[in-house]
Amino acid sequence: MFENYIKTRNLTEEICRPLQPEDYVPQPMEDVSPPKWHLAHTTWFFEQFILVPYLENYKLFDDQFAYLFNSYYNNMGTRVERNQRGFMTRPVVDIVYEYRHHVDAAMQQLLKLNNNQVNKLTELGIHHEQQHQELLIYDIKYILGSQPTAPVYGNKFQPEQEKQSAEWLTIPEGVYEVGVTENDHHFSYDNESPKHKVFLSDFSLRSQLVTNREYLEFIEHKGYENFNLWHEEGWKYIQSNQISAPLYWKKINGTWHTYTLNGNEPIQLDAPVQHISLYEAAAFAEWYGSRLPTEFEWEIAAGRFHWGTLWEWTNSAYLPYPGYKKASGALGEYNGKFMINQHVLRGGSIATSPAHSRASYRNFFYPATRWAFNGIRLAN
Amino acid sequence: MFENYIKTRNLTEEICRPLQPEDYVPQPMEDVSPPKWHLAHTTWFFEQFILVPYLENYKLFDDQFAYLFNSYYNNMGTRVERNQRGFMTRPVVDIVYEYRHHVDAAMQQLLKLNNNQVNKLTELGIHHEQQHQELLIYDIKYILGSQPTAPVYGNKFQPEQEKQSAEWLTIPEGVYEVGVTENDHHFSYDNESPKHKVFLSDFSLRSQLVTNREYLEFIEHKGYENFNLWHEEGWKYIQSNQISAPLYWKKINGTWHTYTLNGNEPIQLDAPVQHISLYEAAAFAEWYGSRLPTEFEWEIAAGRFHWGTLWEWTNSAYLPYPGYKKASGALGEYNGKFMINQHVLRGGSIATSPAHSRASYRNFFYPATRWAFNGIRLAN
Amino acid sequence: MFENYIKTRNLTEEICRPLQPEDYVPQPMEDVSPPKWHLAHTTWFFEQFILVPYLENYKLFDDQFAYLFNSYYNNMGTRVERNQRGFMTRPVVDIVYEYRHHVDAAMQQLLKLNNNQVNKLTELGIHHEQQHQELLIYDIKYILGSQPTAPVYGNKFQPEQEKQSAEWLTIPEGVYEVGVTENDHHFSYDNESPKHKVFLSDFSLRSQLVTNREYLEFIEHKGYENFNLWHEEGWKYIQSNQISAPLYWKKINGTWHTYTLNGNEPIQLDAPVQHISLYEAAAFAEWYGSRLPTEFEWEIAAGRFHWGTLWEWTNSAYLPYPGYKKASGALGEYNGKFMINQHVLRGGSIATSPAHSRASYRNFFYPATRWAFNGIRLAN
Amino acid sequence: MFENYIKTRNLTEEICRPLQPEDYVPQPMEDVSPPKWHLAHTTWFFEQFILVPYLENYKLFDDQFAYLFNSYYNNMGTRVERNQRGFMTRPVVDIVYEYRHHVDAAMQQLLKLNNNQVNKLTELGIHHEQQHQELLIYDIKYILGSQPTAPVYGNKFQPEQEKQSAEWLTIPEGVYEVGVTENDHHFSYDNESPKHKVFLSDFSLRSQLVTNREYLEFIEHKGYENFNLWHEEGWKYIQSNQISAPLYWKKINGTWHTYTLNGNEPIQLDAPVQHISLYEAAAFAEWYGSRLPTEFEWEIAAGRFHWGTLWEWTNSAYLPYPGYKKASGALGEYNGKFMINQHVLRGGSIATSPAHSRASYRNFFYPATRWAFNGIRLAN
Repeated sequence: MFENYIKTRNLTEEICRPLQPEDYVPQPMEDVSPPKWHLAHTTWFFEQFILVPYLENYKLFDDQFAYLFNSYYNNMGTRVERNQRGFMTRPVVDIVYEYRHHVDAAMQQLLKLNNNQVNKLTELGIHHEQQHQELLIYDIKYILGSQPTAPVYGNKFQPEQEKQSAEWLTIPEGVYEVGVTENDHHFSYDNESPKHKVFLSDFSLRSQLVTNREYLEFIEHKGYENFNLWHEEGWKYIQSNQISAPLYWKKINGTWHTYTLNGNEPIQLDAPVQHISLYEAAAFAEWYGSRLPTEFEWEIAAGRFHWGTLWEWTNSAYLPYPGYKKASGALGEYNGKFMINQHVLRGGSIATSPAHSRASYRNFFYPATRWAFNGIRLAN
Repeated sequence: MFENYIKTRNLTEEICRPLQPEDYVPQPMEDVSPPKWHLAHTTWFFEQFILVPYLENYKLFDDQFAYLFNSYYNNMGTRVERNQRGFMTRPVVDIVYEYRHHVDAAMQQLLKLNNNQVNKLTELGIHHEQQHQELLIYDIKYILGSQPTAPVYGNKFQPEQEKQSAEWLTIPEGVYEVGVTENDHHFSYDNESPKHKVFLSDFSLRSQLVTNREYLEFIEHKGYENFNLWHEEGWKYIQSNQISAPLYWKKINGTWHTYTLNGNEPIQLDAPVQHISLYEAAAFAEWYGSRLPTEFEWEIAAGRFHWGTLWEWTNSAYLPYPGYKKASGALGEYNGKFMINQHVLRGGSIATSPAHSRASYRNFFYPATRWAFNGIRLAN
Repeated sequence: MFENYIKTRNLTEEICRPLQPEDYVPQPMEDVSPPKWHLAHTTWFFEQFILVPYLENYKLFDDQFAYLFNSYYNNMGTRVERNQRGFMTRPVVDIVYEYRHHVDAAMQQLLKLNNNQVNKLTELGIHHEQQHQELLIYDIKYILGSQPTAPVYGNKFQPEQEKQSAEWLTIPEGVYEVGVTENDHHFSYDNESPKHKVFLSDFSLRSQLVTNREYLEFIEHKGYENFNLWHEEGWKYIQSNQISAPLYWKKINGTWHTYTLNGNEPIQLDAPVQHISLYEAAAFAEWYGSRLPTEFEWEIAAGRFHWGTLWEWTNSAYLPYPGYKKASGALGEYNGKFMINQHVLRGGSIATSPAHSRASYRNFFYPATRWAFNGIRLAN
Repeated sequence: MFENYIKTRNLTEEICRPLQPEDYVPQPMEDVSPPKWHLAHTTWFFEQFILVPYLENYKLFDDQFAYLFNSYYNNMGTRVERNQRGFMTRPVVDIVYEYRHHVDAAMQQLLKLNNNQVNKLTELGIHHEQQHQELLIYDIKYILGSQPTAPVYGNKFQPEQEKQSAEWLTIPEGVYEVGVTENDHHFSYDNESPKHKVFLSDFSLRSQLVTNREYLEFIEHKGYENFNLWHEEGWKYIQSNQISAPLYWKKINGTWHTYTLNGNEPIQLDAPVQHISLYEAAAFAEWYGSRLPTEFEWEIAAGRFHWGTLWEWTNSAYLPYPGYKKASGALGEYNGKFMINQHVLRGGSIATSPAHSRASYRNFFYPATRWAFNGIRLAN
């Protein structure tokens, strides 16, 4: 268990290696958290939920960190307001790394005892940190992408050109099983549970994600100007935010470029389009004469195509499965309380930990979300 | 057809009869439209969609009304901004009634021709006006309820005490059919279509709606102060709006009262609770150890209990049915473009036209909506 | 005294005569109060400050009106929030008129007693109502001017074409006396007091107000696009409100028109420009190579030119005179608590009561104010 | 000249020495600029206004910096929005220091030529940087004071206990000269010019600033709860911002403390109160039965008492002197365009450069400003 633990912990630090101390600080929009905060919060999770209750004589690294690095757990006491994270310059980055290593040492000691409940919580903590690794990558891209200087992080986390051809995969109507029932052998989140039956009508999914080439065509055919393609909310959203292209796109000398972690680069026409809101995904599908899949269509068809390059918007709202029960106490705040007004994304992205790649995994974001690594799969 | 038409038109005017001219004007929150506006907008619908295209030599009552009384149809041109409706004092109420009667006369003339397409559109216009009748009642209640003087409209539109006992009705798992396929014999909206199959796990619904007595218990057990009962969004919503009881509730000399269309009255303990948001409905269900039904559970069980006193929140997002296609042109803006971020309510209220009482009917509002006549049915 | 009282009261009603009941209700921006509110509030002033304390056995017209029609007097208890006035449909207009006549009858009775303190307060109440008459005219114009239909009120309250030629009147430097000391013979507000000395450097004022012709030249020379002419705040103000002409100006078929109380009319080139903010007045003066006068320059020179068509922006902040003391209690809230962040206007407008026409009178508004009848006088 | 230049430049860096790289980044409220930004912007000023036009073959350190570090000069092109400064992590701190030294080397070279215009502009640049030094100290205090950990910067910039006794110094009425006329011998800003006469009535100023002891008494006598003491705006301001004590005050275990650059410390009762808005200063004066001085009263009496510990709020609006002309071009944006809605402060603080300590100096802030080092002098 410790091996897996420390591998995850090291990867988080690896992701931050190209950063300057200054890059660890800001929060240029509310969805973004400062890298320093991710480093500390994931550590806080192990400290508060595992070391404090289970390691005898554990000495807190710093009394104040419980307040500073709680994310949203009301049961764990008051916390720094989410939109204030970018103002916390202290503790500085070096101290945050010390904090991490202090907790790692204590976890090493505790994990030797091989306590069953500790192991289970550690597994949850590892998955939690892996989720934050992905957010960390989104946030680093957003922070660096907000710089007028378009700095280089490294040639990483950029989807490759799609190699699959654009076929329609058809699935016959019937009763199917979706979800998983939580068990000790394979980790899953409570929101994927329980396994249950759904009835699906005939449908087809396209094997290939929508490409930049196709999306550019949508732009050039004035897709952003035709209200008939949009949800009422989506139309207001693009008007009031003056949106007419995916996030990070900009025209440089008349040519479409996008900010990548490697700096500004010309659009790769055959790569899948990314950084679009659900509103844009739905408008594109409407223009195309198609639609977005539901999360269950996606899950049933997932064995038929390659996925994992970008999270794929579904037209399913994020709601509990029949029989879902949220855990009691602080861990019950993990998933259940967000089950309203968000939409499910399925699949996974190039920034997703392999441990999170399973057909039953339910990611979720608000429809306006663009900074995540998300794309469009079409259904019919 | 004209008989049905004129009956609906007269009912709208009947609803407004207790109002003073001043009451027709304001818009005390964005969801509310001024009564004057409802009177004119429903008339505009007949004029623009039926008289202009189908009645030869029809003379517009006033050229500017197309601009003044369009609600949200982008295809019908520009319009007064929704949040500006309460500033329109002109045309005055008397002119709006003249406008209604001008259009009624023309409709009478046109309907004599018994044109099939006209009849179909007229039926849609009647249903449209019936929907507005219900909104009109909500809006009148909100306008009068905003007066510090709590004026009397009349002893109307107040749910009676529940007479059903609180039983749990159980339904076995299976594949069920929901929805209707649009046809010429029975009117339905496009969002109810097509009829399709769903798989439902075992479930039970409570025959009786949640009563004021039960809801009061929730309040007294500090339900509004226990964050573990709430969605994250719901918790923020009640905090930032300082909500600790249903809309219209107020303590007068230590006793809970509510504004009714008959003035302020003490809470009727055995009547169903109303004017609560989805957030509150969900928190109540959580506290009760229960949950809200899905829209399909509701539809399948609807034959087993009495309904129609209050719209019932479901935990289903308002999304298209498999195979749903929105109409082209302006009428396609009727339903489809709202299919995001709203929740379905099923049933009907004491303010609902009987023509809208069917098990397949899908009403929809944002989770924060409280001014509608909505209540809570529990599921398990 | 009663004669003067009733004359003022009647004039207020006279001003409202062209209105429809609906026009009495809305509040299309926060500066505006509904005409109904003005009618009631001025009545409340007499009731609360005079009848209640001085008329034995006076019976309140309605207990709730103290709450409903208080404007900003913290000492008089809680009140309807300023931005909620447009939602009060009750009491209806007819009741408000009854309220007025109830109070008028009681005042008639009380004034017969010829009590000194009552007379003094009545004089203040008359001046208070006269101030509201002017605001009422601004508000009626704004309410009617917000209608897409541009309704006609009557050919009134429109400044005539300037007949004075544009001369520069020079005043030599020296110590001058400004203000008045409050006394029993001539009414004045506490903010005009006490009379005191100021030193003025040489200056000159232009006899003629800036005309529409001149202002149009400013527009056509891109005055609204040249940031060097503007205060930093003014520049932001016109950008974020998308202002490029005076309030009520609009181009109809390529020609500049303005909404007047007589409907939309072409700009009168030789009439003084009105409905401009202090920001615009200052930018115009900068463009002209001139400046705005101080309030003392204005007061000293006021005998040399005609004024009273439009309030004239000065570049003096609204601050207390040396030795100014505000009254204690509710009447102390009349002027003193507003002495920050506003600017003084001098003179008077075509909507100003003659009783308010004196060289020492200090009107005041925020720099962004445009709905008042204000204009530009230049200084050097 | 270079000696003076480099001394100023070094002092700026000295002020930043106790900071960690992370502290240079954030902007926790809009008034605050990141320390990194101050370091770069003051350098940009020399580069853009002096090196670019006057040093032959000068090579820009980085082309993009003109855009990145312009503050508010519309004439110098577009710029990063003021409220976005805290998101700029690049260039990092080290590069900003390189930028400074690059410009310093070029300035050394240029200043050797002893060009008259260059010398004059350099003097302005030095004064500009000295102003930013003071803001830098405010901003550092605010950034560190926003940390829940209350970090220590050093025992600096904290006013000492007042040693003067609280006497009233009286000045007789008369015509006085205020301001200075710009000249080559003593530097002054254009807003202090020209020297001119004013008439002052008899007045007295208190020799001692208001102390924490006195202010605490105001708090304990419920000064923050008595609306009669406050401007209407001030009352709204403290309500909506929930203000009931000076900025940085907090109760720790029942005792009033304040954040100082040395960490949280108990209030020093005999030190002058600081970090209060003009609204609070005026309410305190009202409660005390006194008032704030005008800027001219202050200037005339300034020889009679010690000052320079805190900037002193006056009740004078920041407006141009008679005959004031703003410079043309970008440097004309220095002062004139801010002359509206702000109030003058006189004197100077412990964070003010000695070169800015003169009786004619006009500092100015909005009435709500609390993060500056400001205090209260009473007048009568």
